[in-house]
Amino acid sequence: MIAILVTGGTFDKQYNELSGTLAFNETHVPEMLRLGRCRVDVVVRQLMMIDSLEMTGAERRSIADACLASSESRIVITHGTDTMVETARLLAAAMQDGPPEGGHYRKTVVLTGAMVPYAFGSSDGLFNLGSALSFAQTLPAGVYIAMNGRAFAWNDVRKNRASGIFENL
Amino acid sequence: MIAILVTGGTFDKQYNELSGTLAFNETHVPEMLRLGRCRVDVVVRQLMMIDSLEMTGAERRSIADACLASSESRIVITHGTDTMVETARLLAAAMQDGPPEGGHYRKTVVLTGAMVPYAFGSSDGLFNLGSALSFAQTLPAGVYIAMNGRAFAWNDVRKNRASGIFENL
Amino acid sequence: MIAILVTGGTFDKQYNELSGTLAFNETHVPEMLRLGRCRVDVVVRQLMMIDSLEMTGAERRSIADACLASSESRIVITHGTDTMVETARLLAAAMQDGPPEGGHYRKTVVLTGAMVPYAFGSSDGLFNLGSALSFAQTLPAGVYIAMNGRAFAWNDVRKNRASGIFENL
Amino acid sequence: MIAILVTGGTFDKQYNELSGTLAFNETHVPEMLRLGRCRVDVVVRQLMMIDSLEMTGAERRSIADACLASSESRIVITHGTDTMVETARLLAAAMQDGPPEGGHYRKTVVLTGAMVPYAFGSSDGLFNLGSALSFAQTLPAGVYIAMNGRAFAWNDVRKNRASGIFENL
Repeated sequence: MIAILVTGGTFDKQYNELSGTLAFNETHVPEMLRLGRCRVDVVVRQLMMIDSLEMTGAERRSIADACLASSESRIVITHGTDTMVETARLLAAAMQDGPPEGGHYRKTVVLTGAMVPYAFGSSDGLFNLGSALSFAQTLPAGVYIAMNGRAFAWNDVRKNRASGIFENL
Repeated sequence: MIAILVTGGTFDKQYNELSGTLAFNETHVPEMLRLGRCRVDVVVRQLMMIDSLEMTGAERRSIADACLASSESRIVITHGTDTMVETARLLAAAMQDGPPEGGHYRKTVVLTGAMVPYAFGSSDGLFNLGSALSFAQTLPAGVYIAMNGRAFAWNDVRKNRASGIFENL
Repeated sequence: MIAILVTGGTFDKQYNELSGTLAFNETHVPEMLRLGRCRVDVVVRQLMMIDSLEMTGAERRSIADACLASSESRIVITHGTDTMVETARLLAAAMQDGPPEGGHYRKTVVLTGAMVPYAFGSSDGLFNLGSALSFAQTLPAGVYIAMNGRAFAWNDVRKNRASGIFENL
Repeated sequence: MIAILVTGGTFDKQYNELSGTLAFNETHVPEMLRLGRCRVDVVVRQLMMIDSLEMTGAERRSIADACLASSESRIVITHGTDTMVETARLLAAAMQDGPPEGGHYRKTVVLTGAMVPYAFGSSDGLFNLGSALSFAQTLPAGVYIAMNGRAFAWNDVRKNRASGIFENL
């Protein structure tokens, strides 16, 4: 069983045709799992529905709390790409016993997101969701970011804002 | 570096608007990798472009030959779902040293496909491609089928034709 | 009020993922009208759901009967492109009083269709539906084919099978 | 020959994946005509690429100038929906000889737009484009708005901002 914790991000943004702006409504994750014909045993929990640029420290800590409280030992988190690395760092501190770099992680946590909203017919959201669920099933305990078909350790990744691509430090 | 070997299948079927039938033309895999913003180092080789129900033993052996000849130790194969298990079985025999069930595999080979053509706006192709590339990076040497978000060992999987879902034996 | 008579055709074909074939299920016309934000007063009647290559003379006459029986004086018919001209010819004979070429038409009837199924993410279906509904509101009584953004009189049109385009004789 | 004058609007908005905002780039009209298999003889002229809420009086007058200068007597204008009625009013004054309400119009001008960007996989843009091109071929000289499958005279239409639907006064 894998827990999918939804926090919002580009993944779930949609177009409000009355205001002409981008906004959040319901998460698209269950629909994406259905279209992907996903048969992995998952439970989807919507923690919040926000742009990660507006995520507060308290909200980040509530994500860590949800990871710790979750009975599942494998977790995928959908998250805006802009501060995904920052949340991964906080989770890494919260999810391990012992010293920050040498401790023992309790669970496999994989953060993922999208550069283009799923509702805009884009494709990286589905590609990334398939990727993140697969990494979550196979990687050892730790905190990772799954973007661009790759899995990055939380402490060896950054988002290149000029290219929109995640890369090693 | 991961080799992606293209053999056709539903993945790559498209609609011929003059004849009104389903047919193969060029593979969509490079476009799918682009839309998925994939940054994994891959090389795409189109071996054939056929419906897997029409795949001959000679064609199946040529896939095994391409796997053995490939300099990459991690391989993803796009393949029709109907005989994917049969090709996986032949690859398992060809890719290992020693006895059929207890031998040592030389490479990590992951077969994947789709229930709905990518060109028809469906989503399981992209989801499965993201999944297969991720399993190919993390699973030990062996032959696997990546469908429905899961990875199956070649000798513990079948396609349930009534539901269109891959499941354990 | 415009009557939309549904007969099937490429317009409504969809992919059966278990059999891997093209088939008919329910008509997509109501969904297309909704996505097009159509606010024209319409009533949708599904007469049949067939490939126009398989349409019999009896079925063609039943379309003419439905046109004559309809209380609406403006009618759009969705129809396969392959025999659309043949049905238009029969309708022209049935819908007018007086001699075949010089008679008086009772209603405005516009046949339309698509080269690519709506369910395959194609676009000519929506474009043609918007076009046909507009021609049906503005053209005088008569029988027309609306394809490729144009309206053709029933007796000055053919489908060019090599190009898939409707053209004047 | 129909002139299509492009001014921007929701029709042509797209998602900038680096900034996460909606923006204009190139017009999608030629691609939409291609997908719609449009064979009407058209010429596409991009006058500007703006949100109609930001359209100035000078820009509105330049649209009228382009209509008057166009050698084509039938014109479709793609335009943001928010101030489409305002531009239609200015065009009506500019395009007729004689008194504002009783004058003689020189050309058939049809304004159209979309509630959802074409690039977001929406459908009303294609539906409306097919509709506008058809009304432009059949309506007498005058200034019209083609939205929601209907054609409105410039002086009997408003956008209902609560519902996003165009309606008679």
